[in-house]
Amino acid sequence: MLNRVRSAVAHLVSSGGAPPPRPKSPDLPNAPSPQTAAPPEAPRSPPATAGSGSAAPAKTVEARASFSRPTFLQLSPGGLRRADDHAGRAVQSPPDTGRRLPWSTGYAEVINAGKSRHNEDQACCEVVYVEGRRSVSGALREPSQGQGLCFYYWGLFDGHAGGGAAEMAARLLHRHIREQLKDLSCWSSQKEVTHESLVVGAIENAFQFMDEQMARERRGHQVEGGCCALVVVYLLGKVYVANAGDSRAIIVRNGEIIPMSREFTPETERQRLQLLGFLKPELLGGEFTHLEFPRRIQPKELGQRMLYRDQNMTGWAYKKIELEDLRFPLVCGEGKKARVMATIGVTRGLGDHNLKVCSSTLPIKPFLSCFPEVRVYDLTQYEHCPDDVLVLGTDGLWDVTSDCEVAATVDRVLSAYEPNDPSRYKALAQALVLGARGTPRDRGWRLPNNKLGSGDDISVFVIPLGGPGSYS
Amino acid sequence: MLNRVRSAVAHLVSSGGAPPPRPKSPDLPNAPSPQTAAPPEAPRSPPATAGSGSAAPAKTVEARASFSRPTFLQLSPGGLRRADDHAGRAVQSPPDTGRRLPWSTGYAEVINAGKSRHNEDQACCEVVYVEGRRSVSGALREPSQGQGLCFYYWGLFDGHAGGGAAEMAARLLHRHIREQLKDLSCWSSQKEVTHESLVVGAIENAFQFMDEQMARERRGHQVEGGCCALVVVYLLGKVYVANAGDSRAIIVRNGEIIPMSREFTPETERQRLQLLGFLKPELLGGEFTHLEFPRRIQPKELGQRMLYRDQNMTGWAYKKIELEDLRFPLVCGEGKKARVMATIGVTRGLGDHNLKVCSSTLPIKPFLSCFPEVRVYDLTQYEHCPDDVLVLGTDGLWDVTSDCEVAATVDRVLSAYEPNDPSRYKALAQALVLGARGTPRDRGWRLPNNKLGSGDDISVFVIPLGGPGSYS
Repeated sequence: MLNRVRSAVAHLVSSGGAPPPRPKSPDLPNAPSPQTAAPPEAPRSPPATAGSGSAAPAKTVEARASFSRPTFLQLSPGGLRRADDHAGRAVQSPPDTGRRLPWSTGYAEVINAGKSRHNEDQACCEVVYVEGRRSVSGALREPSQGQGLCFYYWGLFDGHAGGGAAEMAARLLHRHIREQLKDLSCWSSQKEVTHESLVVGAIENAFQFMDEQMARERRGHQVEGGCCALVVVYLLGKVYVANAGDSRAIIVRNGEIIPMSREFTPETERQRLQLLGFLKPELLGGEFTHLEFPRRIQPKELGQRMLYRDQNMTGWAYKKIELEDLRFPLVCGEGKKARVMATIGVTRGLGDHNLKVCSSTLPIKPFLSCFPEVRVYDLTQYEHCPDDVLVLGTDGLWDVTSDCEVAATVDRVLSAYEPNDPSRYKALAQALVLGARGTPRDRGWRLPNNKLGSGDDISVFVIPLGGPGSYS
Repeated sequence: MLNRVRSAVAHLVSSGGAPPPRPKSPDLPNAPSPQTAAPPEAPRSPPATAGSGSAAPAKTVEARASFSRPTFLQLSPGGLRRADDHAGRAVQSPPDTGRRLPWSTGYAEVINAGKSRHNEDQACCEVVYVEGRRSVSGALREPSQGQGLCFYYWGLFDGHAGGGAAEMAARLLHRHIREQLKDLSCWSSQKEVTHESLVVGAIENAFQFMDEQMARERRGHQVEGGCCALVVVYLLGKVYVANAGDSRAIIVRNGEIIPMSREFTPETERQRLQLLGFLKPELLGGEFTHLEFPRRIQPKELGQRMLYRDQNMTGWAYKKIELEDLRFPLVCGEGKKARVMATIGVTRGLGDHNLKVCSSTLPIKPFLSCFPEVRVYDLTQYEHCPDDVLVLGTDGLWDVTSDCEVAATVDRVLSAYEPNDPSRYKALAQALVLGARGTPRDRGWRLPNNKLGSGDDISVFVIPLGGPGSYS
């Protein structure tokens, strides 16, 4: 994520003190013990359980490394070096040899143009088996009902202020979801509580537990920074899209665009942030005001009338400027430059437990939410064709590509392939990444219209919703 | 509002102590001095400034009365008695003689079937002139630019636990809006701040100032209870619909329904309420839990797993029951029976400053919001015909009438009149009220389908959006 955290790395605090408590859940993976960091360029050994397939607990103590790419890319040490090359910015996809991603999912990524040492995006694509939990009474369900279920899972994690949080989320979030979904097996119909609302609740809680695990294990395990998380779960005919951050998911169906997420930024979450600052003024540390003004106020304007917005307001009104209105606004800036406490440009995600306001010890985490918004799409309500896809992208894609441009690329690329050619979705993901990156020209990466392409990390999943590679 | 406040009247606290401070704004109306209440059935003398026409400050000390109906109904003492008759439930509208309401607006109302002594709904319809405020520098604007502007105003106020708050809001809220709109004259284009967002901000602030005035003047002035407020402002080509409560506004345009408000109830505002209880646990007084459960938990279930929802969740998940989960839930019940703190069924509105939890001194007001949601409809973007209307109704209408049924009645009634007959909108308002009230049969007020009609107060405005009675 480009420029999302202003100087945040310089302000990360490595706290000492007592070791953090261990996770309570016995079959959730514990993080590895503290070890010396591996050399920066050394590729991270793939965790024992990563890659497509069932996700078993990772209790093995692994060597922690500073840089890795998704296991399903199957990168050799040389391939990893090419993926890490800011000058060439080669687009990476899983190889044609070897196992395909579930549903013939397409994936492509490219590293940033130099804004951070490594690609801080991470990705995960898994089929996850959920064992049933013993029911409340302690008895297992009847064997004839089956003991478990499977879900399909895709995750994009866009890191900032370091790659640690994104790596950890890519490795573990689906296991938290699996843990939460075990409760589905003891569900019996109760008022208000539908099966769908239980899956939504499971995903919401999994995000929270993932964030809590990052908080516990940040000391000594170098879970630096934070990450946006965009996650898709397919279970029993329904697609659940959970988003915490500024990545985006859209469905392109018969040319029509169906938004499946919205972005959480200081602008879209202004009222939530202001309300928190209003109810808990101690979080502002006497340095910030929860009020919003159209511009920074000068001391000489004290006593004059000025436009403002409070946490309950969508419109603007006038107030007389008082002394505390001279403080820095909790939310300020516009568009991609909007910031919470002059520091961070995204308001939901995982991690960031050590993030402080620049030149201050004021923590920013209380204003960030780890909870995703979950949207549900019923796959059985529509006869999908092979050209209908769900596109997930980090903000590197969407900063320079509109929904309509993505839909046009979907049409252009897929129509160039046979409907039953499973490689078409990878080609589409690559085309989307290439289209957002551009080509090197005039001292920069440029799009065909000569505007600048994205200098950020760019990662894209293309998930087909019907067709030859489909599920049943 | 039927059953909205459970036993709240019995728990109103009449606080003593020092007299409240006077309002700061010199030209905002002060409430009358404390006086002995007039006899219950005595009609309230119309305030000097009510009725259609410009709204001048009401500085005159008026006799406070316990019951009044909107001045534009022009009720005689006998008429007022009929309007107050629970047995007959005669539908009231402005007389055909005398001045018509602005835009040939239709209005009708009927009293409840006995749930409260008087009709606790109130209404207001005004044309309001706004003088320009002196600009920031102290100089008046150039005379050629004009010193002021006019807005059209309609308000429906649905009282609960007494009629005082609704009466006060009907008398004063438009004057608070006028006061706020004076700032429009010193507006010059600034980034982000549109003219529309200033009108929205003015309306939002006016609701807040109205609520603060009720808080200041509740002692000794019998501003009992609270009220929902649904308000329409027409200014410079745009219709602003502001709603705080569970009244509803819809536009019916060429048969199509355009929702112009949403209802604020414990169910629709669950997450806001829970968040407040979570951030400010002292507001729960150790009596309530901010968590939601599908049913009340029994002490013997301690330690077992139970479904719950927290303030960040839209789905349900499981938790182990702890001691404090046995407290009464902050939000409980479903549909019309949903309550905050087991007491009130609506979560936005004006007043309620003395409302306490039943058998407790715990105040409920901190959980209620006086801020409206404001929706804007640009009247110039569409060529409206005489059959296009904006319908405002208190929940007495909507409890038994769907949006589609209202649209069908709009079509049926208006097509029976000439398009240029200004009485058609009154006839429509009457038809809507009659259709929701029903007729006395089988020991109750019943609809043609034999279901029960609304036993609540019912009030309806029908505002034509184009046609002969139109504005320019």
